[in-house]
Amino acid sequence: MLSGVVSASASERTSPPGAVVWLTGLSGAGKSTIAEAVVARLRARGRPCTILDGDKVRTGLCRDLGFSPEDRAENVRRIGEVGLLMADAGLVVLVAVIAPYQRDRDIVREAAPEGRFLEVFVDTPLSVCESRDPKGLYAKARAGLLRDFTGLDAPYEVPTEPEIVLRTTVSSADDLADALVAALAQRGLA
Amino acid sequence: MLSGVVSASASERTSPPGAVVWLTGLSGAGKSTIAEAVVARLRARGRPCTILDGDKVRTGLCRDLGFSPEDRAENVRRIGEVGLLMADAGLVVLVAVIAPYQRDRDIVREAAPEGRFLEVFVDTPLSVCESRDPKGLYAKARAGLLRDFTGLDAPYEVPTEPEIVLRTTVSSADDLADALVAALAQRGLA
Repeated sequence: MLSGVVSASASERTSPPGAVVWLTGLSGAGKSTIAEAVVARLRARGRPCTILDGDKVRTGLCRDLGFSPEDRAENVRRIGEVGLLMADAGLVVLVAVIAPYQRDRDIVREAAPEGRFLEVFVDTPLSVCESRDPKGLYAKARAGLLRDFTGLDAPYEVPTEPEIVLRTTVSSADDLADALVAALAQRGLA
Repeated sequence: MLSGVVSASASERTSPPGAVVWLTGLSGAGKSTIAEAVVARLRARGRPCTILDGDKVRTGLCRDLGFSPEDRAENVRRIGEVGLLMADAGLVVLVAVIAPYQRDRDIVREAAPEGRFLEVFVDTPLSVCESRDPKGLYAKARAGLLRDFTGLDAPYEVPTEPEIVLRTTVSSADDLADALVAALAQRGLA
Protein backbone atom coordinates (compact mmCIF):
# COMPACT_ATOMS: atom_id res chain seq x y z
CA MET A 1 0.00 0.00 0.00
CA LEU A 2 1.06 3.56 -0.66
CA SER A 3 0.96 5.91 2.25
CA GLY A 4 -1.84 8.45 2.06
CA VAL A 5 0.31 11.29 0.82
CA VAL A 6 -2.59 13.46 -0.26
CA SER A 7 -3.50 15.41 2.84
CA ALA A 8 -6.33 17.65 3.89
CA SER A 9 -4.34 20.68 2.79
CA ALA A 10 -6.46 20.81 -0.34
CA SER A 11 -9.12 22.45 1.77
CA GLU A 12 -6.82 25.46 2.19
CA ARG A 13 -6.97 26.17 -1.52
CA THR A 14 -9.60 27.93 -3.54
CA SER A 15 -8.43 26.64 -6.94
CA PRO A 16 -9.66 23.23 -8.16
CA PRO A 17 -8.05 20.25 -6.45
CA GLY A 18 -5.28 18.35 -8.14
CA ALA A 19 -5.71 14.88 -9.55
CA VAL A 20 -3.79 11.99 -11.03
CA VAL A 21 -5.00 11.11 -14.53
CA TRP A 22 -3.32 7.85 -15.41
CA LEU A 23 -3.24 6.98 -19.10
CA THR A 24 -2.61 3.27 -19.29
CA GLY A 25 -2.23 1.23 -22.46
CA LEU A 26 0.23 -0.56 -24.67
CA SER A 27 3.44 0.95 -25.99
CA GLY A 28 2.48 3.02 -29.03
CA ALA A 29 -1.16 3.31 -27.95
CA GLY A 30 -0.96 7.11 -27.96
CA LYS A 31 -0.64 7.82 -24.23
CA SER A 32 2.05 10.52 -24.46
CA THR A 33 0.51 12.18 -27.52
CA ILE A 34 -2.86 12.52 -25.79
CA ALA A 35 -1.23 13.60 -22.51
CA GLU A 36 0.65 16.38 -24.30
CA ALA A 37 -2.50 17.54 -26.08
CA VAL A 38 -4.38 17.62 -22.77
CA VAL A 39 -1.61 19.56 -21.02
CA ALA A 40 -1.58 22.12 -23.83
CA ARG A 41 -5.32 22.62 -23.37
CA LEU A 42 -5.09 22.84 -19.57
CA ARG A 43 -2.22 25.36 -19.76
CA ALA A 44 -4.26 27.47 -22.16
CA ARG A 45 -6.93 27.55 -19.44
CA GLY A 46 -4.33 28.52 -16.84
CA ARG A 47 -4.75 25.20 -15.03
CA PRO A 48 -1.56 24.06 -13.25
CA CYS A 49 -0.64 20.68 -14.66
CA THR A 50 2.25 18.47 -15.64
CA ILE A 51 3.13 15.21 -17.37
CA LEU A 52 4.85 12.21 -15.85
CA ASP A 53 6.07 10.31 -18.89
CA GLY A 54 7.17 6.71 -18.47
CA ASP A 55 10.14 6.95 -20.79
CA LYS A 56 11.50 10.05 -19.06
CA VAL A 57 10.92 8.73 -15.56
CA ARG A 58 12.83 5.59 -16.45
CA THR A 59 15.95 7.64 -17.17
CA GLY A 60 15.57 9.54 -13.90
CA LEU A 61 13.56 8.63 -10.84
CA CYS A 62 13.28 4.97 -11.81
CA ARG A 63 16.56 4.47 -13.63
CA ASP A 64 17.48 1.63 -11.26
CA LEU A 65 14.48 -0.44 -12.31
CA GLY A 66 14.02 -3.03 -15.07
CA PHE A 67 10.96 -4.71 -16.54
CA SER A 68 10.34 -7.68 -14.27
CA PRO A 69 6.88 -7.76 -12.67
CA GLU A 70 8.46 -6.65 -9.36
CA ASP A 71 10.32 -3.76 -10.96
CA ARG A 72 7.23 -2.72 -12.90
CA ALA A 73 5.28 -2.70 -9.64
CA GLU A 74 7.95 -0.52 -8.01
CA ASN A 75 7.97 1.78 -11.06
CA VAL A 76 4.22 2.28 -10.81
CA ARG A 77 4.43 2.67 -7.02
CA ARG A 78 7.02 5.45 -7.23
CA ILE A 79 5.22 7.26 -10.03
CA GLY A 80 2.01 6.96 -8.04
CA GLU A 81 3.68 8.48 -4.98
CA VAL A 82 5.08 11.35 -7.02
CA GLY A 83 1.80 11.90 -8.85
CA LEU A 84 -0.13 12.04 -5.58
CA LEU A 85 2.39 14.47 -4.06
CA MET A 86 1.97 16.68 -7.12
CA ALA A 87 -1.81 16.37 -7.03
CA ASP A 88 -1.70 17.35 -3.37
CA ALA A 89 0.09 20.51 -4.46
CA GLY A 90 -2.84 21.28 -6.77
CA LEU A 91 -1.59 19.98 -10.11
CA VAL A 92 -3.47 17.88 -12.61
CA VAL A 93 -0.89 15.20 -13.31
CA LEU A 94 -1.12 13.40 -16.64
CA VAL A 95 0.68 10.09 -16.18
CA ALA A 96 1.61 8.41 -19.47
CA VAL A 97 2.88 5.06 -18.26
CA ILE A 98 1.94 1.56 -19.44
CA ALA A 99 1.34 0.18 -15.90
CA PRO A 100 0.34 -3.24 -17.20
CA TYR A 101 -0.96 -4.76 -13.95
CA GLN A 102 -4.38 -3.93 -12.55
CA ARG A 103 -3.16 -4.55 -9.01
CA ASP A 104 -0.45 -1.89 -9.30
CA ARG A 105 -2.92 0.65 -10.70
CA ASP A 106 -5.38 -0.17 -7.94
CA ILE A 107 -2.77 0.51 -5.27
CA VAL A 108 -2.41 4.06 -6.57
CA ARG A 109 -6.19 4.46 -6.75
CA GLU A 110 -6.61 3.32 -3.16
CA ALA A 111 -4.02 5.84 -1.96
CA ALA A 112 -5.78 8.74 -3.67
CA PRO A 113 -8.66 10.72 -2.21
CA GLU A 114 -12.06 9.82 -3.65
CA GLY A 115 -12.45 11.07 -7.19
CA ARG A 116 -8.87 12.28 -7.51
CA PHE A 117 -7.51 9.30 -9.44
CA LEU A 118 -8.79 8.68 -12.94
CA GLU A 119 -7.81 5.53 -14.76
CA VAL A 120 -7.91 6.28 -18.47
CA PHE A 121 -7.60 3.30 -20.77
CA VAL A 122 -6.00 4.30 -24.06
CA ASP A 123 -7.57 1.46 -25.96
CA THR A 124 -5.53 0.75 -29.07
CA PRO A 125 -5.31 -2.83 -30.34
CA LEU A 126 -1.92 -4.50 -30.28
CA SER A 127 -1.94 -4.89 -34.06
CA VAL A 128 -2.40 -1.13 -34.49
CA CYS A 129 0.30 -0.29 -31.93
CA GLU A 130 2.66 -2.65 -33.68
CA SER A 131 1.93 -1.23 -37.12
CA ARG A 132 2.57 2.32 -35.78
CA ASP A 133 5.66 1.28 -33.79
CA PRO A 134 6.74 4.92 -33.30
CA LYS A 135 9.93 4.01 -31.44
CA GLY A 136 10.73 0.84 -33.36
CA LEU A 137 10.36 -1.16 -30.16
CA TYR A 138 7.98 -3.81 -31.52
CA ALA A 139 10.41 -4.52 -34.34
CA LYS A 140 13.23 -4.88 -31.83
CA ALA A 141 11.14 -7.11 -29.60
CA ARG A 142 10.08 -9.31 -32.54
CA ALA A 143 13.74 -9.58 -33.50
CA GLY A 144 14.53 -10.84 -30.01
CA LEU A 145 16.46 -7.72 -29.02
CA LEU A 146 14.02 -6.73 -26.26
CA ARG A 147 12.55 -9.09 -23.70
CA ASP A 148 9.56 -8.78 -21.37
CA PHE A 149 7.85 -6.50 -23.85
CA THR A 150 4.27 -5.67 -22.88
CA GLY A 151 1.75 -7.19 -25.23
CA LEU A 152 4.24 -9.67 -26.70
CA ASP A 153 6.07 -11.69 -24.05
CA ALA A 154 4.80 -9.75 -21.01
CA PRO A 155 1.13 -9.32 -20.09
CA TYR A 156 -1.08 -6.26 -20.32
CA GLU A 157 -4.13 -6.39 -18.09
CA VAL A 158 -6.96 -4.38 -19.63
CA PRO A 159 -8.50 -2.07 -17.01
CA THR A 160 -11.53 -3.68 -15.40
CA GLU A 161 -13.28 -0.45 -14.36
CA PRO A 162 -11.59 2.54 -15.97
CA GLU A 163 -13.21 5.96 -15.50
CA ILE A 164 -12.61 6.76 -19.15
CA VAL A 165 -11.85 4.80 -22.32
CA LEU A 166 -10.20 6.55 -25.28
CA ARG A 167 -10.27 4.69 -28.61
CA THR A 168 -7.55 6.00 -30.88
CA THR A 169 -8.79 3.94 -33.81
CA VAL A 170 -12.09 5.83 -33.70
CA SER A 171 -11.09 9.42 -32.87
CA SER A 172 -8.07 11.66 -33.36
CA ALA A 173 -5.71 12.50 -30.49
CA ASP A 174 -7.02 16.08 -30.54
CA ASP A 175 -10.63 14.94 -30.26
CA LEU A 176 -9.73 12.53 -27.46
CA ALA A 177 -7.85 15.30 -25.65
CA ASP A 178 -10.93 17.52 -25.93
CA ALA A 179 -13.05 14.69 -24.53
CA LEU A 180 -10.66 14.12 -21.63
CA VAL A 181 -10.54 17.82 -20.75
CA ALA A 182 -14.34 17.88 -20.84
CA ALA A 183 -14.43 14.87 -18.52
CA LEU A 184 -12.05 16.63 -16.12
CA ALA A 185 -14.15 19.80 -16.21
CA GLN A 186 -17.28 17.77 -15.51
CA ARG A 187 -15.57 16.44 -12.37
CA GLY A 188 -14.51 19.93 -11.25
CA LEU A 189 -10.87 19.19 -11.98
CA ALA A 190 -10.30 21.57 -14.90
CA MET B 1 24.01 12.46 -12.43
CA LEU B 2 20.36 13.25 -12.51
CA SER B 3 18.80 13.61 -15.91
CA GLY B 4 17.90 17.16 -16.78
CA VAL B 5 14.25 16.85 -15.97
CA VAL B 6 13.56 20.56 -15.90
CA SER B 7 12.77 21.43 -19.49
CA ALA B 8 12.30 24.60 -21.45
CA SER B 9 8.58 24.39 -20.90
CA ALA B 10 8.93 27.08 -18.24
CA SER B 11 9.10 29.55 -21.10
CA GLU B 12 5.48 28.71 -21.92
CA ARG B 13 4.35 30.07 -18.59
CA THR B 14 3.77 33.61 -17.50
CA SER B 15 3.81 32.89 -13.74
CA PRO B 16 7.16 32.82 -11.89
CA PRO B 17 9.27 29.74 -12.55
CA GLY B 18 9.36 26.92 -10.05
CA ALA B 19 12.37 26.19 -7.89
CA VAL B 20 13.74 23.65 -5.47
CA VAL B 21 14.53 25.20 -2.09
CA TRP B 22 16.44 22.57 -0.15
CA LEU B 23 16.59 23.05 3.60
CA THR B 24 19.50 20.96 4.81
CA GLY B 25 20.58 20.56 8.42
CA LEU B 26 20.65 18.20 11.36
CA SER B 27 17.63 16.38 12.73
CA GLY B 28 15.82 18.85 14.97
CA ALA B 29 17.43 21.88 13.30
CA GLY B 30 14.03 23.32 12.39
CA LYS B 31 13.83 22.44 8.70
CA SER B 32 10.21 21.29 8.64
CA THR B 33 9.02 24.09 10.91
CA ILE B 34 10.57 26.73 8.67
CA ALA B 35 9.36 24.98 5.51
CA GLU B 36 5.79 24.95 6.80
CA ALA B 37 5.98 28.62 7.73
CA VAL B 38 7.32 29.47 4.27
CA VAL B 39 4.61 27.46 2.53
CA ALA B 40 1.92 29.22 4.57
CA ARG B 41 3.32 32.57 3.43
CA LEU B 42 3.60 31.53 -0.22
CA ARG B 43 0.05 30.14 -0.24
CA ALA B 44 -1.21 33.41 1.22
CA ARG B 45 0.39 35.10 -1.81
CA GLY B 46 -1.26 32.58 -4.14
CA ARG B 47 2.10 31.11 -5.10
CA PRO B 48 1.86 27.41 -6.03
CA CYS B 49 4.15 25.50 -3.70
CA THR B 50 4.56 22.31 -1.76
CA ILE B 51 6.71 20.57 0.84
CA LEU B 52 8.74 17.42 0.41
CA ASP B 53 9.35 16.31 3.96
CA GLY B 54 12.02 13.74 4.63
CA ASP B 55 10.07 11.82 7.24
CA LYS B 56 7.01 11.53 5.02
CA VAL B 57 8.97 10.60 1.91
CA ARG B 58 10.66 7.82 3.84
CA THR B 59 7.30 6.19 4.50
CA GLY B 60 6.33 6.49 0.84
CA LEU B 61 8.54 7.09 -2.18
CA CYS B 62 11.70 6.00 -0.37
CA ARG B 63 10.32 3.39 2.00
CA ASP B 64 12.71 0.78 0.58
CA LEU B 65 15.76 2.77 1.65
CA GLY B 66 17.80 2.76 4.86
CA PHE B 67 20.46 5.06 6.24
CA SER B 68 23.68 3.78 4.70
CA PRO B 69 25.63 6.37 2.67
CA GLU B 70 24.44 4.64 -0.53
CA ASP B 71 20.80 4.65 0.55
CA ARG B 72 21.05 8.27 1.68
CA ALA B 73 22.45 9.16 -1.74
CA GLU B 74 19.55 7.36 -3.44
CA ASN B 75 17.08 9.07 -1.09
CA VAL B 76 18.44 12.50 -2.02
CA ARG B 77 18.58 11.54 -5.72
CA ARG B 78 14.92 10.51 -5.82
CA ILE B 79 13.77 13.54 -3.86
CA GLY B 80 15.84 15.72 -6.18
CA GLU B 81 14.20 14.15 -9.24
CA VAL B 82 10.75 14.67 -7.78
CA GLY B 83 11.54 18.21 -6.68
CA LEU B 84 12.81 19.14 -10.13
CA LEU B 85 9.75 17.61 -11.81
CA MET B 86 7.54 19.67 -9.50
CA ALA B 87 9.62 22.80 -10.09
CA ASP B 88 9.28 22.22 -13.82
CA ALA B 89 5.52 22.27 -13.30
CA GLY B 90 5.87 25.72 -11.72
CA LEU B 91 5.90 24.91 -8.03
CA VAL B 92 8.22 26.28 -5.38
CA VAL B 93 9.25 23.06 -3.64
CA LEU B 94 10.39 23.32 -0.05
CA VAL B 95 12.50 20.24 0.63
CA ALA B 96 13.01 19.54 4.33
CA VAL B 97 15.51 16.70 4.21
CA ILE B 98 18.81 16.31 6.08
CA ALA B 99 20.83 15.37 2.94
CA PRO B 100 24.09 15.09 4.90
CA TYR B 101 26.51 14.78 1.97
CA GLN B 102 27.62 17.76 -0.09
CA ARG B 103 28.12 15.55 -3.14
CA ASP B 104 24.49 14.40 -3.11
CA ARG B 105 23.23 17.99 -2.79
CA ASP B 106 25.54 19.09 -5.60
CA ILE B 107 24.13 16.44 -7.94
CA VAL B 108 20.67 17.97 -7.53
CA ARG B 109 22.07 21.46 -8.02
CA GLU B 110 23.80 20.45 -11.24
CA ALA B 111 20.59 18.97 -12.63
CA ALA B 112 18.63 22.16 -11.97
CA PRO B 113 18.47 25.14 -14.32
CA GLU B 114 20.66 28.06 -13.22
CA GLY B 115 19.21 29.83 -10.20
CA ARG B 116 16.43 27.31 -9.67
CA PHE B 117 18.07 25.34 -6.86
CA LEU B 118 18.67 27.04 -3.56
CA GLU B 119 20.68 25.31 -0.87
CA VAL B 120 19.49 26.65 2.47
CA PHE B 121 21.58 25.68 5.47
CA VAL B 122 19.45 25.52 8.61
CA ASP B 123 22.36 26.15 10.91
CA THR B 124 21.54 24.86 14.37
CA PRO B 125 24.35 23.46 16.52
CA LEU B 126 24.20 19.79 17.39
CA SER B 127 23.95 20.57 21.10
CA VAL B 128 20.85 22.68 20.48
CA CYS B 129 19.24 20.05 18.24
CA GLU B 130 19.92 17.42 20.87
CA SER B 131 18.49 19.52 23.66
CA ARG B 132 15.33 20.15 21.62
CA ASP B 133 15.08 16.53 20.43
CA PRO B 134 11.47 17.03 19.20
CA LYS B 135 11.08 13.41 18.13
CA GLY B 136 13.15 11.82 20.89
CA LEU B 137 15.57 10.50 18.26
CA TYR B 138 18.77 11.78 19.88
CA ALA B 139 17.82 10.08 23.13
CA LYS B 140 17.19 6.83 21.24
CA ALA B 141 20.45 7.15 19.35
CA ARG B 142 22.41 7.87 22.55
CA ALA B 143 20.77 4.82 24.09
CA GLY B 144 22.04 2.72 21.20
CA LEU B 145 18.57 2.12 19.77
CA LEU B 146 19.29 3.97 16.50
CA ARG B 147 22.42 3.60 14.43
CA ASP B 148 23.92 5.76 11.67
CA PHE B 149 22.37 8.85 13.23
CA THR B 150 23.46 12.06 11.52
CA GLY B 151 25.62 14.20 13.79
CA LEU B 152 26.36 11.34 16.18
CA ASP B 153 27.68 8.23 14.43
CA ALA B 154 27.05 9.40 10.86
CA PRO B 155 28.55 12.54 9.30
CA TYR B 156 26.90 15.83 8.42
CA GLU B 157 28.78 17.86 5.87
CA VAL B 158 28.13 21.57 6.41
CA PRO B 159 27.25 23.24 3.07
CA THR B 160 30.32 24.79 1.49
CA GLU B 161 28.50 27.43 -0.57
CA PRO B 162 24.85 27.62 0.47
CA GLU B 163 22.73 30.37 -1.07
CA ILE B 164 21.18 31.10 2.30
CA VAL B 165 22.03 30.39 5.94
CA LEU B 166 19.30 30.44 8.57
CA ARG B 167 20.40 30.54 12.21
CA THR B 168 17.65 29.29 14.46
CA THR B 169 19.55 30.22 17.60
CA VAL B 170 19.48 33.87 16.52
CA SER B 171 16.02 34.32 14.97
CA SER B 172 12.57 32.77 15.32
CA ALA B 173 11.19 30.38 12.72
CA ASP B 174 8.68 33.05 11.68
CA ASP B 175 11.41 35.64 11.16
CA LEU B 176 13.51 33.13 9.23
CA ALA B 177 10.51 32.22 7.08
CA ASP B 178 9.98 35.93 6.34
CA ALA B 179 13.64 36.22 5.38
CA LEU B 180 13.48 33.18 3.13
CA VAL B 181 10.34 34.42 1.35
CA ALA B 182 12.05 37.78 0.85
CA ALA B 183 15.08 36.01 -0.62
CA LEU B 184 12.80 34.08 -2.99
CA ALA B 185 11.00 37.27 -4.02
CA GLN B 186 14.34 38.96 -4.68
CA ARG B 187 15.20 36.12 -7.07
CA GLY B 188 11.84 36.40 -8.84
CA LEU B 189 10.66 33.10 -7.42
CA ALA B 190 7.86 34.34 -5.14
